Amino acid sequence: MTRVGILGYGNLGKGVELAIRQNADMELVGVFTRRDPATVTIATEGVPVRSVAELDEGTATDVDVLIICGGSATDLPVQTPKYAGKYNVVDSFDTHARIPEHFANVDAAAKEAGKTALISCGWDPGLFSLNRLYANCILPEGSDYTFWGKGVSQGHSDALRRIPGVADAKQYTIPVPEALEAVRAGQNPELTTREKHTRQCFVVLEEGADPAAVTEQIVNMPNYFDEYDVEVNFISQEELNANHSGLPHGGFVVRSGATAGGMNCTIEYSLKLDSNPEFTACVLVAYARAVARLSAEGNTGCKTVFDIAPAYLSAQPADFLRAHML
Amino acid sequence: MTRVGILGYGNLGKGVELAIRQNADMELVGVFTRRDPATVTIATEGVPVRSVAELDEGTATDVDVLIICGGSATDLPVQTPKYAGKYNVVDSFDTHARIPEHFANVDAAAKEAGKTALISCGWDPGLFSLNRLYANCILPEGSDYTFWGKGVSQGHSDALRRIPGVADAKQYTIPVPEALEAVRAGQNPELTTREKHTRQCFVVLEEGADPAAVTEQIVNMPNYFDEYDVEVNFISQEELNANHSGLPHGGFVVRSGATAGGMNCTIEYSLKLDSNPEFTACVLVAYARAVARLSAEGNTGCKTVFDIAPAYLSAQPADFLRAHML
Repeated sequence: MTRVGILGYGNLGKGVELAIRQNADMELVGVFTRRDPATVTIATEGVPVRSVAELDEGTATDVDVLIICGGSATDLPVQTPKYAGKYNVVDSFDTHARIPEHFANVDAAAKEAGKTALISCGWDPGLFSLNRLYANCILPEGSDYTFWGKGVSQGHSDALRRIPGVADAKQYTIPVPEALEAVRAGQNPELTTREKHTRQCFVVLEEGADPAAVTEQIVNMPNYFDEYDVEVNFISQEELNANHSGLPHGGFVVRSGATAGGMNCTIEYSLKLDSNPEFTACVLVAYARAVARLSAEGNTGCKTVFDIAPAYLSAQPADFLRAHML
Repeated sequence: MTRVGILGYGNLGKGVELAIRQNADMELVGVFTRRDPATVTIATEGVPVRSVAELDEGTATDVDVLIICGGSATDLPVQTPKYAGKYNVVDSFDTHARIPEHFANVDAAAKEAGKTALISCGWDPGLFSLNRLYANCILPEGSDYTFWGKGVSQGHSDALRRIPGVADAKQYTIPVPEALEAVRAGQNPELTTREKHTRQCFVVLEEGADPAAVTEQIVNMPNYFDEYDVEVNFISQEELNANHSGLPHGGFVVRSGATAGGMNCTIEYSLKLDSNPEFTACVLVAYARAVARLSAEGNTGCKTVFDIAPAYLSAQPADFLRAHML
């Protein structure tokens, strides 16, 4: 059994709790919280809510792997190096530009402690990264494309909610079908930001707010919306709750290339997910199994999905995998 | 530089020769043949055609990895264990049912010789296997689907050509669009052989042959055609040469599952290849790089794609991959 601890009990932590139930060789031994454990109730009976102080003191010795479910902006840059100095850890750090720095910090801490860490696990970074890498190695001459959606961007939804006059909002990122088709057809198009994705907003106005003024603010918002074609829909809070309360997501990774003989080849990977956090959690749990194994083999330091052989993710022995999945 | 030898100079061996040109860190040091080397001309100037006797004697010491490009029926079961006893080797053994036996033979030979071997590399088995494995580990509760095509099945084309009255023929395997759509929609259908693929035949008759009799023989041929909906088209040799001389292929691997929270998730991987052998060769060459590295690390014995961390396939260092592909 691999004994798992969860740090952080938001959407992702709750997803990890669920994912562990689908893996008979994994056991949840605690959800760790910065709050008073007595005030936190979790979905799994018989599993204790424990204080983060236990982790800090290094006394949570029953934890084989700690899955850290904090945010990339402020939580993970602190938490992952800190706990990699005491436990095997997995995180889903997703600020692409800061991965080298985060890796260096976690690697130093894990190596010094003789622990194994995995950062930037999930689907992007994570499964999408794997597919970019495999496809690039196989087709060295070609072009890469990543499309996201259709799915809810929490960052863009948050940005909408910060606009004065907006009571609530959800934003869907949608790939432009024509762009995806051109890529699939091997046309290797050069695509602008606007040509790749559109942004669909569902906005609940505060009483008395001016829809025209809110629309103006949305479509001109730098970084988030100004470079995109934006669709703004004003709806009631009831309609938002009824039709837009989920967190679906997904996307496409395509590499379009040619052999040295001039033969076109297209490799495509895609995900369609009813729940972004629950699926991400499934990826984290499979990789937590791998981290426990690497640790048992004495393979310490910080890893990424690039460093882990696929067989490490499976609960099945190698001969079973060769006979049934190869 | 990784110095590569090619054994066998059919479509696949020629594809490997081409693929090496796209990888600046790989060098072709010889094509090995059972024929008189003086009678074989290869596409690459300055690279020698060498006798297989050199391999047998173990004197081809400049070969870091030997890519064995024989057939799975009779060549590879003999060649791969034989040469794994003297060289690091890669093959594309694709008889799924006999993989465990082939693995055992190659593993014993490679371990005894302190060499590294990789079997069953390519796209199925190979990249499709990887995707089956990753998807199963991430979504333990779900259904797997593999569709092949649209593409040329060489086995089925050969079967057509063995029918009396048939001068030449090509057979395309085509996924049934409705089946693929049902799978993508998360309906988890149970599909019969007939419901998954159709078989499209282009047949050139010998003079005087009876098309009705040939059609009858095709559609009733056990294993190859009798369980499928079959389309038979009679065309001229000129038309076959003009429109059906390529070896395109591809396919789809889909896993459709749900989280423990009941959220549906679909993972899909697909390939669209203008040349099956040239693409397979690209996969073999990327994995030859990995085999050379494993060998240099002293990691010997037989491997499959499941055992090899993705970063081993890349010519780029780990920090580059983290910064640019993760």
